[in-house]
Parts: sequence; structure tokens; C-alpha cells
Amino acid sequence: MMIKYAVTLSRISVVENVFFQTRRYSSTSKRSLSKDQYNVKRGNFKALEPQHIQFFRDLLGETRILTGVNNLDKYNEDWYGFAKGESSLVVKPKTTDEVSAILSYCNKNLLAVCPQGGNTSVVASGVPVFDEVILSMELMNKIHKIDDVSGVVIFDAGCVLENLNNAVSEKGLIVPLDLGAKGNCQLGGNLSTNAGGLRLIRYGNLHGNVLGVEAVKADGEIINCLRTFKKDNTGYHLKHLFIGSEGTLGVITKIALQCPPHPKSKNIAFLGLESYDKVLKTFKKAKFDLGETLSAVEVLDRESVILTEEKLALRSPIGEYPFYLIIETSGSNEQYDSEKMDKFLEISLKENLILNGVASSEPSKIKNIWEIRERTAEALRHDGYVFCYDFSVPLQHFYTLVDLMKTHMGSKSHRVFGFGHLGDSNLHLQVSVREHTKEIQNMIEPFVFEKVREINGSISSEHGMGFLKAKYLDISNHQSATKLMRVLKNVMDPNGILNPYKVIPY
Amino acid sequence: MMIKYAVTLSRISVVENVFFQTRRYSSTSKRSLSKDQYNVKRGNFKALEPQHIQFFRDLLGETRILTGVNNLDKYNEDWYGFAKGESSLVVKPKTTDEVSAILSYCNKNLLAVCPQGGNTSVVASGVPVFDEVILSMELMNKIHKIDDVSGVVIFDAGCVLENLNNAVSEKGLIVPLDLGAKGNCQLGGNLSTNAGGLRLIRYGNLHGNVLGVEAVKADGEIINCLRTFKKDNTGYHLKHLFIGSEGTLGVITKIALQCPPHPKSKNIAFLGLESYDKVLKTFKKAKFDLGETLSAVEVLDRESVILTEEKLALRSPIGEYPFYLIIETSGSNEQYDSEKMDKFLEISLKENLILNGVASSEPSKIKNIWEIRERTAEALRHDGYVFCYDFSVPLQHFYTLVDLMKTHMGSKSHRVFGFGHLGDSNLHLQVSVREHTKEIQNMIEPFVFEKVREINGSISSEHGMGFLKAKYLDISNHQSATKLMRVLKNVMDPNGILNPYKVIPY
Repeated sequence: MMIKYAVTLSRISVVENVFFQTRRYSSTSKRSLSKDQYNVKRGNFKALEPQHIQFFRDLLGETRILTGVNNLDKYNEDWYGFAKGESSLVVKPKTTDEVSAILSYCNKNLLAVCPQGGNTSVVASGVPVFDEVILSMELMNKIHKIDDVSGVVIFDAGCVLENLNNAVSEKGLIVPLDLGAKGNCQLGGNLSTNAGGLRLIRYGNLHGNVLGVEAVKADGEIINCLRTFKKDNTGYHLKHLFIGSEGTLGVITKIALQCPPHPKSKNIAFLGLESYDKVLKTFKKAKFDLGETLSAVEVLDRESVILTEEKLALRSPIGEYPFYLIIETSGSNEQYDSEKMDKFLEISLKENLILNGVASSEPSKIKNIWEIRERTAEALRHDGYVFCYDFSVPLQHFYTLVDLMKTHMGSKSHRVFGFGHLGDSNLHLQVSVREHTKEIQNMIEPFVFEKVREINGSISSEHGMGFLKAKYLDISNHQSATKLMRVLKNVMDPNGILNPYKVIPY
Repeated sequence: MMIKYAVTLSRISVVENVFFQTRRYSSTSKRSLSKDQYNVKRGNFKALEPQHIQFFRDLLGETRILTGVNNLDKYNEDWYGFAKGESSLVVKPKTTDEVSAILSYCNKNLLAVCPQGGNTSVVASGVPVFDEVILSMELMNKIHKIDDVSGVVIFDAGCVLENLNNAVSEKGLIVPLDLGAKGNCQLGGNLSTNAGGLRLIRYGNLHGNVLGVEAVKADGEIINCLRTFKKDNTGYHLKHLFIGSEGTLGVITKIALQCPPHPKSKNIAFLGLESYDKVLKTFKKAKFDLGETLSAVEVLDRESVILTEEKLALRSPIGEYPFYLIIETSGSNEQYDSEKMDKFLEISLKENLILNGVASSEPSKIKNIWEIRERTAEALRHDGYVFCYDFSVPLQHFYTLVDLMKTHMGSKSHRVFGFGHLGDSNLHLQVSVREHTKEIQNMIEPFVFEKVREINGSISSEHGMGFLKAKYLDISNHQSATKLMRVLKNVMDPNGILNPYKVIPY
């Protein structure tokens, strides 16, 4: 039964009933090692010897190294359960000079290194594949400067996104990046993977918002391009070498970020729609009617919401629909912004674009609605093994890809569903199965990547290539681009010690 | 006499009296060659021989090559009159394959190449220094695709900015870049110099807005990274190598750009203020009160406006003040946006932040006000020889630098004045003198650059390094960054044929 949406938009309280669990980050059952699971060959690196460990002990002290492969699950296994390495050493620098000393030593001694942030990568970008030394950035988490007039914020790469956002909020600013993993992910990892997230539609991407970085090359040389201006054209824009190269060209140690003013008013709408066609029409309308206030347009299909209901006991506040849209606006005038949103919803309802919805400008309710979208990743962890994909797809093909995969998988899959950042053409396609098998993997890959190529999509929208997608790079990239990537890798890291087996086909 | 600003903001008509000349782009008096003026040594390139010219004639036909050093002033001399080369060959490709063939041939034959867009560089980035072959992009000006739903626009690098903006406007979009030279500058040049311009505060920079580029390396290899998604993380983000490297790492041939919806309503205010302190306070207020609608904050000092009055017969619509601010908003709701602007101005007047002002939402008046700011560069050409600087400066030091230079120059200069993009901390400092002499040049440089370094500024905000600033790169950059730049140059263009004597110290 469709409950007609109240035109006057009695800003509702249904959402309050939603029940929230705390986040759970415990590691799951025993996983097989990546090298066995993915049949990958170890590079020609030296194995760790006692004198190497002694060097790191001398450099960092006893408390900032962790040894013994059996104690390091938290660092060896990725959060989603896709990959598992067998590193027996984690090192935790606190300063750029320490990062430099570590890399310089590893480079000279041909020890492979896996830089690690919050370990929330969806493509196993931040865990070792074999016995790489894990360079954990978790202790480099100082915030150095927040300038509330210019909006320039300078901090260490190991800062957790949510912590940084809390700190800048106190000064009236907002971090122009927001994603589900914010409680764990680190900014250094966000930059290294060029994370996109929920509010890219409003604030743009990290290549645009990062003012400067300090990074350490494989040989330990510190590259200081920690510039602090929006406009700064003094030579090549080197920082972009480190943004999105997933730690394979250097380790980011410090960041200068442009943070916009914290919006004074927020509005959110959670809408039910009957078809993807209506989703697209509503999006177009939102883009033109809500204009500069639009800060997020997220889509979820029915299955995505059912999953969070089943696994996390979250509840849709409006009952069941084939599609849901979350539309958020952020502005500087509470009254105008609410009026704008209400008018947009009123017309959308009148024009039969949407079937039902709730809207709110209350922070607690806004948070509740966002949890339905943001905790999808967490729910996935409780649904057997899930093949997670992250595509950029021309909008007209956005959902046909999900339908195609449903047909393709038939009874072999448990669920096939899609959600994502519609405003950025970014689809998260999910295929969950009872158990990971080679047969199912071969059924899905490279089939799904080839389909994406056929519709001129991108096989990695915001997650990066990491370990899981590296071998499919040539499906997406032109040969000339891959060739130039190899040239850069070779010149920046001739021994290949930085995050091997990631990004570039191994 | 200060005319109090009407609180009710009778949206005024004074601006109509402003008289506008047509733009003049005739070349000025005989200039000395850059090699003599700047004492620079020619690189070890081959000189052009008849068989080389025959190759280009065969490739492009008679009509697409220009020969003879005496006929090529338009291409050899920069628009401002800072530099003059002595090339005797201009080639005009129409396709990427032709660009590839040209570069491949030049690379094999060790012929230096100067890629040229609209020749509007302020640092002589686009003119030859010696006898480089001029690769003019002016015939590569096709627009390939305008997608009015996604906002993705694909076009050739030789498109003139204003033409592209007119074309996308017809589809309800706007090019997220606007600058005074828009009638002449080409997008390829804009990208190569990472142009900033007037509306960066609203739409962000080119590193954020460019989705993909196709470029040709020095050896003729075509690098296709013409991606078309806002989020696309498939390997290294190679396009950034070409954005801002001023044609020294490759020649951009095609561009995919994200264009936002054309704003439905615009408002502009032209304000008179009594001090820089008030300018800064008004800016802070605008940032927080006008929030997401703010699309430009420009500052001009009294001298800047006097110059356009004297040289171009433009007139300030509000009489004479020590400082002027142009504040523009762009939004999606005419009524809300005008109300917001009016309220902001009303309070600013009440709080004595501003002394006088005019505001308008009529397109013709908005255009008139913009001309006062945008034609400053043109006015400069009629004011003897002008040393033009383009700094990013922490806001608290923004205007003290102008005052410092006034004192430093004393009677040696004709005028010292400043204007610029306050919203981006971007100051255009100008020192005009009756005639260029070595003595005056040595009085200004490197003095001014060192002062900028002392206040942690950037010696090139949006203009790039080009030929004029290249030798000062080390004043601004850390050695490690310059070293890495040289490594990249060497690996991308081992013979150094691409735009020699530019960006990197020669």
C-alpha cells in the first residue's frame, strides 16, 4: 500500500523508531591466504631477517613495532575478508623522518612495504599479499593547523576522517569528504585511493580540494609540496602523483586541505519510487531545482534496504518500494532551504515522480536516514561472501547492469543488488553468495568488467584498483596510459618495494 | 563625498553610463628579442632546414604552415609585450594524429617546439624564445559532445573559452572557468597553465573539473586518458601531468570537462570601502552569509579603477573609494538570491563595513560591472611597461605587499597597484614604469619574490612560471620538488624539445 506523501510535509518522526546497533569490527572466520586464493607469485624481495627487525626496534623502540605473523590479523586481513597476507612485522612511525628512515632502509635492503591507513579498502589496497613490512600510519595523527578564515587545514596522514571532521566543525568548517567508513578510514588512505564518497557532488573531488601534500618516495626522499593555496602554479603539480596511486609511488605523510564553511542548514529527504526511470527523472529535477544547495543524491534498490533491515535491524521509515532516493541539501539559510526542498518534493509528488517520502531538517533524523545508506557496507559483512563492485556508468545504463547480473547469476547468487552515488554516476553493484568459490568468481569476472567496458563505464569509480582489480587494469585503460603508468612507477620506485601487487597488473 | 547606499537597494542604472571600447589586440611597438633582453642561451637543438619545412608542407598542405620570421609577429610576440621569439615556422594541425606526426618528427630531428594556444599568457609561456617551431592549436577547435544531463562536455584543445561557454550555455550549462582573456584564450592553454580565473571560488579548479585529457608526448605517442566520469580510479591519474605543466610534458589535444548547470539567477554588487581591513571583514561576512551562492569576490584598489578610467574610459559607477569589491552570487532562485544579497548589503552598510555600492541582477549591468575588472589587463597595455605579478598571499598580508612595493619603488615607478581574486587569496600586483630598463627590473626582481616567500606566499598563483618566472622556481619550491620535476621532464621528454626555457630554470 502506498501512503501518499503529505504535501505540507509534516516533517516526520517515523525515523525515530529505527534501531541502531553499534558498529562491529571484529575479524571474521579463518581466511585463506591471498597468495593461495588468487594464485599470485611473490616478487623478488628479500625475506625479513632478525637484523632487519633489530633496525626497526632501534629506530622506533619496542612499543612501536609488532612482530609475529600470528599476532597481526588486524593488519594482515582486510576488513571485508577478501584478502589476507602473512606479514610478520608492523612498524608505526610518528614522524615523517621516521617514515623516511623506514623506506630508505627497506629500499636498500629490498624489503617490500605495504603502507596501511585505516584498512577499510574494498579492493584490498592496504593489506599485504605476502610478507611485506606493514607501515601503519595510525600514530601519525596530529592536526597541525585549522585556519577558520581561509579554510586551510593541515594535518598528518594518519588522522581518522571522523576525528578531523569533528575538529574542523568546532571552527565552523566541514571536511569536503564523507563516507561510510569515516570512523576508521584515515585521510592518507583517502588521498591515496582518491576516495569519493557521499558529498562529492557538492564539494568536488580530492584532486580539487587537496592544496598540498608531503610524501616520502620509495628511497626515503621527502617530497615537500605541502602548499596551502587554492591557486598555486609554481611548476608541475606533483601532489597528484600521490593522490590516487594507492601508495605505490610514495607514502603521503602530511596533507593541506581546503575546507568549506560548515553549512548552516541541512535538509534530507528519503523517498520511495516505483522505477529506475522515475529515479533518473527525479534526479534531473533535483539537479536543476535544488541547484547549488544539493549536497547528496544517493540511490538504493529494494534489496539494499532489505539487507540492512535483515542484518542490522535498521528500518525503512516509509515501507517498501522498488527504489529509494536520499536527497540532501546543505545551505546557508534554514528557511529558504527548507522551503526549496518542500517545494521540490511537493511538485515531484504531484508529477508522480515519487510515491512516498519523509523529509527532515533535524540533525538526529538526518543521521538516522544516513545510517540506512552508510551502513550497507557493514550489513554486507554478515551476508556470506560478497563480490563488491564499484563502477562509474553512464546514467542511462546505471541500473540495467544490476538487472543483467541478476539474470546472469540466476540461482548461483544469494542476492544481486545495487546502490550508490547517483549524482556521480557511481554504482555499487553487489553479488552475494553463500560461499566464495573459484567457479562463481569465474562466472562473474571478467564478465562484469567487460560489460562495463561495453557501456563505456569505468571498472573502478572510487575504490581504486588495489590488489583485487589490478589484473583488470587493461580492460579499462588504454595501453598508452598503462605504459606511462609503468614508466612512472619505474622512475619513482625502481625496486618496486612500495605496495607491490597493487594497481598495476602483477 | 560619500553617497550613502540606499538600504532598500534601488537596483541602479548608473552603470549604464559606462562607456566601452572594443578590445584591441594590435601588436605594439618594435620589441627586442627575448634572447637579448633576458640573456638566455639557446639549447642544443637543430636549426630548421628546407627539408624540415618540406616535411610539414607535405603533412599539412600549403595553407596550414606559415613561414618567414618577418611574417610571424602575431605568433612570435606575446600579447603583453614581455617577450619575442624568432621562429620562422608555424604549423597548424587539425587532428591529434597530425600533432603526433609533428612531434614525432621534431623529436627525431631535435627541433624544439613551442605549443601555442590563444597567446594570452602573462608569463610568456606560449611564445618561442629562439627559433622553436610554433605548434599553433587554433585549428583544432571542434566541440565533440555536450551532455546536458551529466554535464560532460568533450572538445578539442584549441576551442576558445568564450566560444565553448556560449555553446554549453545553449544547453543550460556553464563552463566552470571564466577569465578576462576568454575571447582569445584556448582551453588547451587554460589547462596547460591550470588557469584559475574569476569563479574558482564557486566551481573549484581545473584539477577538480577536468574529467579527462588526450595528450601527445614529445615522442609523438598519444596518451589517451580522456575519461568522462567524476569518479574514475583506474590507475594513476595521468591527466594531472598535463594540467599546469605548460606544455613541457606533452601537448593537450582533447579535453573532457564537467560543466555545472547554468545558474538561474545572478546578482552582483560593486562596493566602495575605506580600507583593506574593511575589505577583509566584508569578505568574511560574504563567505558565511552568502554561502553556497557566492560565485566571485574580487578586489580592486583605487589606482586599478583610475587606470581603466584613464585608458579605456570606463567609469566607476559609485565614484572614488580607496578600495572596491565586486561580489557576485549565482543561484537557482531569483527571489531568494536577490533577497539574500540585499540583506547582506543592508547589514554591511549598517555595520559600516562598506561606504557605498550598487547592486543589480540584470545581465547587461552585471556585464558592465565585470568589464571594469576584466579589462584591467587591457588597460595595462596602454600604460608604458608593466611588471605584472600574480601571487597567492595569506589574506592578512594581501595588501601590505602593494604598500611595501609603493615604498620600495618610490619615484622610479609610474604606478604601483593591486587587484585580484580575494576569494582565492590571489593578488595581481602591478608595477608600471615609463620604460623597461635593466636597472628597474633588478630593483624589483628578485626583491618582490623574496618578500612573497617571507610571508609564505606563492610567486605564481594562476599564471604559471612560463619563460618570465622560470628562473625563480627555486625561490618558491623545495629542492626535492624541483628535483622530481626534472626527473619527470627527463622521462617524458628526454630530448627536451617541448617548450624549452619554460617552467624549469634554464
